[in-house]
Amino acid sequence: MEYIASPKNEHIKAAKKLTVKKYQKGGDAYLLEGWHLVQEAIKSGQTPRRIYATEKFIEERELRPFYELITEISPEVAKHLAETPTPQGIFAIMPRELGSLPEQLSGQYLLLDGIQDPGNVGTLVRTADAAGIHQVVFGNGTADPFNPKVLRAMQGSQFHVNITQAPLNGVIKDLQTAGMPVFGTELNVNAKSYRDVEPRDNFALIVGNEGNGMDKALLEETDTNLYIPIKGSAESLNVAIAAAVVMFHLTA
Amino acid sequence: MEYIASPKNEHIKAAKKLTVKKYQKGGDAYLLEGWHLVQEAIKSGQTPRRIYATEKFIEERELRPFYELITEISPEVAKHLAETPTPQGIFAIMPRELGSLPEQLSGQYLLLDGIQDPGNVGTLVRTADAAGIHQVVFGNGTADPFNPKVLRAMQGSQFHVNITQAPLNGVIKDLQTAGMPVFGTELNVNAKSYRDVEPRDNFALIVGNEGNGMDKALLEETDTNLYIPIKGSAESLNVAIAAAVVMFHLTA
Repeated sequence: MEYIASPKNEHIKAAKKLTVKKYQKGGDAYLLEGWHLVQEAIKSGQTPRRIYATEKFIEERELRPFYELITEISPEVAKHLAETPTPQGIFAIMPRELGSLPEQLSGQYLLLDGIQDPGNVGTLVRTADAAGIHQVVFGNGTADPFNPKVLRAMQGSQFHVNITQAPLNGVIKDLQTAGMPVFGTELNVNAKSYRDVEPRDNFALIVGNEGNGMDKALLEETDTNLYIPIKGSAESLNVAIAAAVVMFHLTA
Repeated sequence: MEYIASPKNEHIKAAKKLTVKKYQKGGDAYLLEGWHLVQEAIKSGQTPRRIYATEKFIEERELRPFYELITEISPEVAKHLAETPTPQGIFAIMPRELGSLPEQLSGQYLLLDGIQDPGNVGTLVRTADAAGIHQVVFGNGTADPFNPKVLRAMQGSQFHVNITQAPLNGVIKDLQTAGMPVFGTELNVNAKSYRDVEPRDNFALIVGNEGNGMDKALLEETDTNLYIPIKGSAESLNVAIAAAVVMFHLTA
């Protein structure tokens, strides 16, 4: 097994570059950090391209099938690669691959329209997963699913949920053609209260940009637009909070 | 009207210190930034101790009753005081005062048990406000309500909600004595699904620490403990997300 002691090693430099935004676009790999996430990736059937691990992880049972792919690294290298202050000492280079939409459109979908904040995007995916929604579509203007902050906030839900990227106008049409109700969300009280919509097995829910809400053209394509009645004096809800409230209602 | 051009002015140095953690504890004032929040403070009946504003705000109608309290500042001073990269140019020094619990305990309460992340704490207060919950109690180990990151995430909801600080064991007893049901939250499936509890006008809901959940001793004092059924493979929900789902259910 190869051992890398220095952060100046060319492979380590290349791995580190995967965490830097300007090298991500157009790339075909990303760096996953931490034992829990690497386990989740393996459990979901994905094969790492390379695993960098400190001594204590080398003998882990789950890693045995990938023994050929492991490179041992020094604690110094782990510290260099890490996004966290006290790294566990395990990293995997994973293929930057997204799923595609199923041919038969049915079930529950979350559609993200221009959600910019990576923390919000990751939390939305994690919350969809918890609500049992298995399809999340990243529309235009939404943060990159492989952004390290998105990855951290998803906490591994990318391995349970099918994440796709597509312009939402086309997706909406396809969902409607398949007979699925598509719910938009707006602050407008002309919309319908989410509480007046019954839980259901098949739906798509679209949530919009933090500051501007959903794209106006998309709002016109939806079947029904929902809002959350605000009782107090708060003017709005955080987008991930609002989506959570509606998702847990619709999937009840 | 006094005019301050330099960030080195003693008053400005004192105001800046209010935003630094080590000077906050035991202090009796905090610095509020931005026109929207200053307006909310004034609308809620609070009187600023001093307002620092650039020229464009001096003639604002809402500030007229406080004309004596205004000091004009240069854009350079505004930049120095600001937490945001492009400051609007208005700040108020506000009394660091919390409310107290009402003598007659009734209505809807959110109790925070050891919520450490300031963003979560602020979002919880903002979401309680939106759900129509007017009482939020900060228990032991919960971030300071005047922490600048808490203030930013509350987005002004501190002026709509009565925020108090108190050890929760005493508060729980007082609420129970007043005949109020007190709901704890745990991940444990031995708890009751929140969906099996009817919306109601009087309740207290306790949410617990991000990593460890609610204090075990407090969990034993509650009337019923609630959990959110997780359908997917996500292992947990963000605490503010979980609280939002339960609050909007109970206040429906």
